[in-house]
Amino acid sequence: MTEEFFEKKLAAQPIAAIPGMIAFDIPVHGDNRGWFKENFQKEKMLPLGFPESFFKEDKLQNNVSLSRKGVLRGLHAEPWDKYISVADNGRVLGSWVDLREGDSFGHVYQTVIDASKGIYVPRGVANGFQVLSETVSYSYLVNDYWALDLKPKYAFVNYADLALGIEWHDVENAEVSEADKNHPLLKDVVPLTKEQL
Amino acid sequence: MTEEFFEKKLAAQPIAAIPGMIAFDIPVHGDNRGWFKENFQKEKMLPLGFPESFFKEDKLQNNVSLSRKGVLRGLHAEPWDKYISVADNGRVLGSWVDLREGDSFGHVYQTVIDASKGIYVPRGVANGFQVLSETVSYSYLVNDYWALDLKPKYAFVNYADLALGIEWHDVENAEVSEADKNHPLLKDVVPLTKEQL
Ligand SMILES: Cc1cn([C@H]2C[C@H](O)[C@@H](COP(=O)(O)OP(=O)(O)O[C@H]3OC[C@@H](O)[C@H](O)[C@H]3O)O2)c(=O)[nH]c1=O
Ligand SMILES: Cc1cn([C@H]2C[C@H](O)[C@@H](COP(=O)(O)OP(=O)(O)O[C@H]3OC[C@@H](O)[C@H](O)[C@H]3O)O2)c(=O)[nH]c1=O
Repeated sequence: MTEEFFEKKLAAQPIAAIPGMIAFDIPVHGDNRGWFKENFQKEKMLPLGFPESFFKEDKLQNNVSLSRKGVLRGLHAEPWDKYISVADNGRVLGSWVDLREGDSFGHVYQTVIDASKGIYVPRGVANGFQVLSETVSYSYLVNDYWALDLKPKYAFVNYADLALGIEWHDVENAEVSEADKNHPLLKDVVPLTKEQL
Repeated sequence: MTEEFFEKKLAAQPIAAIPGMIAFDIPVHGDNRGWFKENFQKEKMLPLGFPESFFKEDKLQNNVSLSRKGVLRGLHAEPWDKYISVADNGRVLGSWVDLREGDSFGHVYQTVIDASKGIYVPRGVANGFQVLSETVSYSYLVNDYWALDLKPKYAFVNYADLALGIEWHDVENAEVSEADKNHPLLKDVVPLTKEQL
């Protein structure tokens, strides 16, 4: 842990490349036991720009995945918003690709996230990450419900598409799912319309 | 990980000793990358008994703490409900003491929790845990907001009170906070009234 991990001031930074995407600095309090953080706190984060619309339909799901070093998951743009975070001492290289029709289609954003960051990802933006630490607990909130039979309707883009310009580490040896190997290249993705989201 | 960790069926088990407390079995899906779980899924869990009242005031906070082996946190009964979980491969000994006035005042429940469990803890029930693994990521949802200046109003009971009959491991050497060392014994706790919760 670097000094920068602890006691950041809660703050929000809009990501210019991808409209609606927001990076939050999350205060992490360390002590003799380990650390504690308010990973999400509605009352403090709404005024900073966390969209009220996230809660519009009163739906809530919290997903957690545990992954080993070198694992790469993504890039997935399901029709719901995501608030992404790391729940342990791990680190991931987060990557996002805008799949919404319009000027920002194909725009990419990348950043390393640890437990002192929280990332708001609007629906229509494909989400993915590669694990940089031995393991990582990746935890996120979403506002609609996944279903296996709807999967064919979700949007994806291939993590290995060179046109994205994403700088993965040793991507040839990344541990991925069979599904993720077979997603389309960006040039073959049909931009998502407002009606689809 | 034992076989019992993966692919449990989502299920809810009311805890008889502490009215309103519920233990959920959470399905964890393992694959070549690690695992994935729907840690909380409102649409599936409300019909199983997760209280709709949790969302009544539209408040939401997600807390995450990271703790080393032997750390013990608790026992705290703030005026909000909690949905408790483990977000990595760690394990904790969870312990709960009912501090609400009535027949169940002083009742205790203990169980080991890993990522395949989720525990609903109603307000007025003191919550605590001891870390059994090298580290643990402990993640929970609450429905009201903590404030430092309100801390004197929160209810606590001392983890080391023998009257509780909690079977901690090597409690003399547990790593705790100064605050937790100084909480009252059960016999000195004034039961919480409905109005206080
Ligand atoms: C997303 C999801 C998945 N699952 C199951 C299906 C599989 O058995 C297992 C893993 O599912 P994957 O789609 O392979 O998960 P993953 O590749 O990790 O993708 C997820 O994490 C990254 C996120 O970007 C993405 O939204 C989400 O699909 O979990 C569920 O039971 N519920 C879900 O909500
Ligand atoms: C609960 C809480 C704490 N904090 C800060 C205060 C301290 O700097 C730091 C740790 O707080 P503690 O009260 O020492 O946390 P802990 O002993 O881990 O207790 C918490 O976890 C166990 C839970 O049972 C309990 O609700 C909660 O108080 O985090 C916050 O900023 N926000 C919070 O919501």
